[in-house]
Amino acid sequence: MQNDELEPNGPDAPYAHLLAMAREVQLLQSSAALLSWDQETFMPPEGAAHRAKQLALLARLAHERVAGAEFAGLLDEAAAAPTDPAAAVNLRELRRLHERAVRVPPGLVAELAETTSLAQGEWAAARAASDFARFAPWLEKLLQLSRRRAECLGWPAGGEAWDALAEDFEPGMTAQQIAPLFASLRGPLGELVRELRERGQEPDTALLAPAVPVAAQERLARLVAEQLGFDFARGRMDLSTHPFTTSTCSRDVRFTSRFRADHVLDGLGSTMHEVGHGLYEQGLPPTHEGTPLGETVSLGIHESQSRLWENHVGRSREFWEWCTPHLQRVLGNPTPPLTAEAVWRAANVVRPDFIRVEADEATYNLHIAVRFELELALLRGDLEVAGLPAAWNAGYREHLGLEVPDDRRGCLQDVHWSCGMFGYFPTYTLGNLYGAQIFEAATRALPGLPDAIAGGRFALLRDWLGEQVHAQGSRFTAAELCERVCGGPLGADAYLRYLGTKLRAVYRL
Amino acid sequence: MQNDELEPNGPDAPYAHLLAMAREVQLLQSSAALLSWDQETFMPPEGAAHRAKQLALLARLAHERVAGAEFAGLLDEAAAAPTDPAAAVNLRELRRLHERAVRVPPGLVAELAETTSLAQGEWAAARAASDFARFAPWLEKLLQLSRRRAECLGWPAGGEAWDALAEDFEPGMTAQQIAPLFASLRGPLGELVRELRERGQEPDTALLAPAVPVAAQERLARLVAEQLGFDFARGRMDLSTHPFTTSTCSRDVRFTSRFRADHVLDGLGSTMHEVGHGLYEQGLPPTHEGTPLGETVSLGIHESQSRLWENHVGRSREFWEWCTPHLQRVLGNPTPPLTAEAVWRAANVVRPDFIRVEADEATYNLHIAVRFELELALLRGDLEVAGLPAAWNAGYREHLGLEVPDDRRGCLQDVHWSCGMFGYFPTYTLGNLYGAQIFEAATRALPGLPDAIAGGRFALLRDWLGEQVHAQGSRFTAAELCERVCGGPLGADAYLRYLGTKLRAVYRL
Repeated sequence: MQNDELEPNGPDAPYAHLLAMAREVQLLQSSAALLSWDQETFMPPEGAAHRAKQLALLARLAHERVAGAEFAGLLDEAAAAPTDPAAAVNLRELRRLHERAVRVPPGLVAELAETTSLAQGEWAAARAASDFARFAPWLEKLLQLSRRRAECLGWPAGGEAWDALAEDFEPGMTAQQIAPLFASLRGPLGELVRELRERGQEPDTALLAPAVPVAAQERLARLVAEQLGFDFARGRMDLSTHPFTTSTCSRDVRFTSRFRADHVLDGLGSTMHEVGHGLYEQGLPPTHEGTPLGETVSLGIHESQSRLWENHVGRSREFWEWCTPHLQRVLGNPTPPLTAEAVWRAANVVRPDFIRVEADEATYNLHIAVRFELELALLRGDLEVAGLPAAWNAGYREHLGLEVPDDRRGCLQDVHWSCGMFGYFPTYTLGNLYGAQIFEAATRALPGLPDAIAGGRFALLRDWLGEQVHAQGSRFTAAELCERVCGGPLGADAYLRYLGTKLRAVYRL
Repeated sequence: MQNDELEPNGPDAPYAHLLAMAREVQLLQSSAALLSWDQETFMPPEGAAHRAKQLALLARLAHERVAGAEFAGLLDEAAAAPTDPAAAVNLRELRRLHERAVRVPPGLVAELAETTSLAQGEWAAARAASDFARFAPWLEKLLQLSRRRAECLGWPAGGEAWDALAEDFEPGMTAQQIAPLFASLRGPLGELVRELRERGQEPDTALLAPAVPVAAQERLARLVAEQLGFDFARGRMDLSTHPFTTSTCSRDVRFTSRFRADHVLDGLGSTMHEVGHGLYEQGLPPTHEGTPLGETVSLGIHESQSRLWENHVGRSREFWEWCTPHLQRVLGNPTPPLTAEAVWRAANVVRPDFIRVEADEATYNLHIAVRFELELALLRGDLEVAGLPAAWNAGYREHLGLEVPDDRRGCLQDVHWSCGMFGYFPTYTLGNLYGAQIFEAATRALPGLPDAIAGGRFALLRDWLGEQVHAQGSRFTAAELCERVCGGPLGADAYLRYLGTKLRAVYRL
């Protein structure tokens, strides 16, 4: 059904009105998205207090609409009329949003908002001082509030509080489904890392050591973003401390990157990662804009697109066939010239370290595994907040073979928990797994893919992803999309195949 | 009364609730302001359609609040309680906003919004083709709708439709009050221009002819903006096609400028103009933020601040004592070096021309006089739309002694009427007159002012303006402020004194 075919007084009237309300909510949320983007990019330092008030008002207006009696009434009326499959998806999703909005009392919403707002400052100060005791009472309070919120939201039989919170990020995913995935990853990844480090030939990374002016890196990043197919008539690239992507609609998608003179591949990788997010947003179906059908599926699927371009493309031998001459120029034409082989190997070095955001592909999911276990234990009450640093350090010792030197480089390194985001971390690993499965499916469907990448012809992959994933919006759940695109359920095999093959080649095993 | 002293359940409760609603409206409007700023500076080209929807929604939500029954009830209840003078100002202004909001039926508001949205595109096309006939039916429709709107709004006895529309921009100002001001200006300005052109020694402008890289101009503009006292921790400078200033609150004030390689003083003048607007916004009283008391008085007073810094400071002999060495560097250190005297004279050249936005100080108000007469005649029905080009050209012949070559450089040059903004143009002249009177008062109050300007010590003037004008917010009407600051009512004398003295010196008469 095309939305503009709806007759305002026909049997579809309640559904049409519901969609109009959903679109209004999207306009409020996308206005807030632009204000948040501005806050991270261009806002003058003293604008923060007023910006917080603007964002709080827009969030309240959106919440009032979704939680309100009018929305509920339209949902009931629309459900009573016959619907096509597309409308059924919208009704299901809008019902889900409505119920989650009404289940949590406004007082708890406000208390969480206020606590996370204060906790972030406390976390930043605690991290700077590597002083977990300072953050502990805030984490304790956030856990209590989050447990109460989870109880308000509820969860399916056999589940637990974590599931209710993870639903914000990955609808339908439960701890019970995720735990076996981590179990499948931990052993083989640990093995792989040991094998590479003990028997492999470590790549030489000195060729990437020379400092490169940030402006030159930015030019290269923009060139690569354009080549990958990011449409700058419908988007922007800017700078920010932490790279992110924001979309107000598919015709205004903005990502940020950051460049450090002494880490030339870092900024390029960040850029390709965000371009992956951006291509997804730019490829959403305009017909369904402002309704759930026109939105992305989940954070895991979103992350699959960023990881796919960052890692499966950006860390591939083929990509460096195309990109090495550009990097050679950016590095000031060193002699002997860089080779694609050498850059590719350097881009894939594996070195277990403490910091998640700087982790290589092989150890990344081990960082997430530690966090997943700990947030489950915290929410279940199996772990006291006071015991978190010791448990964290034990996890790093076990999974990564590292002795964490201090909490700054340990359990205080990530912002997520201070924002009350429990259940978020695993979406990074889901993104890696979905990404590997989708890229494997693309490789099967597109026999010319390696040559296309080596030739800088990224449209082949981009168009396929556009058709298979982006243009689908939320027509399918993450699980349904995975079955359709990859021909099977989510698992760890494709990821382990991909990583083992590549890294053993890199390490000449 | 400090707003935070209000007791929510005391006798001030309705007033406190009213202010809370006013602040919510300000949050909606300032969110829209940020979205509009983004549209002119950074928005990708294809984002326009979605941005229009966001802005329309935010405008509707603000309008619903101000026009609503709750607002009306609180106004009545608050008016019944005793109030101090500050509260009386807020109540008066909120009542005025409410009444204007309810008087115009939503259908007419929507029709005007839609028509102006379309008319701007038609105007742009008509101007590009210098084809008035293309724009004529749109102007006709906008006049009809604006007359209807004026009739809904109403006007005081003895007034006319123009007054009701001008109230949007300059509350309390009427055509009857403005006409004598233009009458006082026209003769003496025409005389002055003739005297300068016929008997004076025209300044040499060749010294400003060399092309200057835009980046160097931008650095100079930023240096000057900082020196004038614009606080970049609470604001920004960016680039846009047409310079403007936007404020979301006094701690986030943004202006734009534009730079052309072959017009080195143009971008600097624009910057000083917008900095004048920006200093006003940054100087508003934070205590009353989000309420009328915390807002600027009128467009005329706003423009007085921009013109004062652009012209009374930026085109003064003293300013160039300080700024010439900077300009000398930006121009690549020409030999012989520039002198303050020579730059000052070149910055004040008088050359009657067709385009308002490029006009010098002496002819600027003549451009406005033509427009004021014509919009009055159009609204009164004394002039048919079809007759506008001929009437325009006759006005330019009479007041500026020019034969307008085509409508592109004639009655199609300005965007205002295509936006339905009738009654706006005279605020530019009001700004010039208020600016001259305020600067004269500053000169009386601050004997060391010329030396301070020549030494680049602009804080003396800025602080005085801050105290006399900026920090007053809307405590006084424009007329009251003028009496308080300048010791008399608005008139043309100070302006004519200032301009005659300066330009005769420039032209060595």
